[in-house]
Amino acid sequence: MISPLDQLAQLLARLPGLGPRSARRAVLYLLKRREALMLPLAEAMNNAAQKVQTCALCGNMGVLDPCEICRDGTRDHSVICVVEDVADLWALERSRAFRGLYHVLGGTLSALEGVRPADLRIESLQERVKGGEVNEVILAMSATVEGQATTHYVTERLIPLGVKISRLAHGLPVGGELDYLDDGTLTAALQARREFG
Amino acid sequence: MISPLDQLAQLLARLPGLGPRSARRAVLYLLKRREALMLPLAEAMNNAAQKVQTCALCGNMGVLDPCEICRDGTRDHSVICVVEDVADLWALERSRAFRGLYHVLGGTLSALEGVRPADLRIESLQERVKGGEVNEVILAMSATVEGQATTHYVTERLIPLGVKISRLAHGLPVGGELDYLDDGTLTAALQARREFG
Repeated sequence: MISPLDQLAQLLARLPGLGPRSARRAVLYLLKRREALMLPLAEAMNNAAQKVQTCALCGNMGVLDPCEICRDGTRDHSVICVVEDVADLWALERSRAFRGLYHVLGGTLSALEGVRPADLRIESLQERVKGGEVNEVILAMSATVEGQATTHYVTERLIPLGVKISRLAHGLPVGGELDYLDDGTLTAALQARREFG
Repeated sequence: MISPLDQLAQLLARLPGLGPRSARRAVLYLLKRREALMLPLAEAMNNAAQKVQTCALCGNMGVLDPCEICRDGTRDHSVICVVEDVADLWALERSRAFRGLYHVLGGTLSALEGVRPADLRIESLQERVKGGEVNEVILAMSATVEGQATTHYVTERLIPLGVKISRLAHGLPVGGELDYLDDGTLTAALQARREFG
């Protein structure tokens, strides 16, 4: 029979960002903090596993369905920002730069990993746009090959619906040094240059 | 009230090796694998928190007290290997290079962090040696300043007991390239050179 220690280490090692060695370190760290961290963490996991659900409208995760963002009357319901994953939604929320609604695709198209359009929440995005309340769809997929292929595909699906479609600007990251920038970003930043004044 | 998602992310972020960003990524990863990983992990944590205890003899962690190693009659009970932490004991066990018993100090002496001799399991080591069954004590502390200071202190405590004391060899790591080695290790490896044949 596998020991409770090995079992815990093996499960922890499956988390992204933790390997076998750091998982073992985490096990010892937890065992030294049973009341302060280990039991609360187990409790928080059970709690989240039970209560957290996916919003049927936008695909966000939270304790409510529809989620807090979709329910929020103070937000702009005429703009939908399309993201790959819930993590991207959270990143945008942390920036406080966007006050509209979201739509989580649940990934990107990928021939390699066998992700087809039907695997993403594209149809429900079309339905939301057809609903009529939406004026603009902002495509905020990653600037990767898969992200851009997905952007292209979603654009094709939305054009017939006559909604305004935009995508995030490419360019110099704020605080970024020109010297360290890759050629693709430099080219994009030059092409999208803006006049002063 | 803090949401179950944020609560879980905050607790996970306290694990060594996980920051706020990787903790959020882990939360999403877990939520996508509730039955396969999240609930088993919570269960394994509760289980380990309940069952794992510290061996009163050597300081190892396990479900038994005395631990499996201390109980093992096939091991050499006349040699004790002194290590800083349980993780070091596990590393030695994985190497299968040692078949004696262990003694976990529970850290290193550190003026900066306020770790005094009384905070380490040094007295119980002395008691074990006084027990008479022990012929040799191998000091396997890290080759850090704190580790070596602890080695020195423990040696001083053991000398009056008339037991054989040894420490791990310093030298070239197996598979290591000379070019990348620090000066201290190179000097130690040279001084401890061994004649062929």
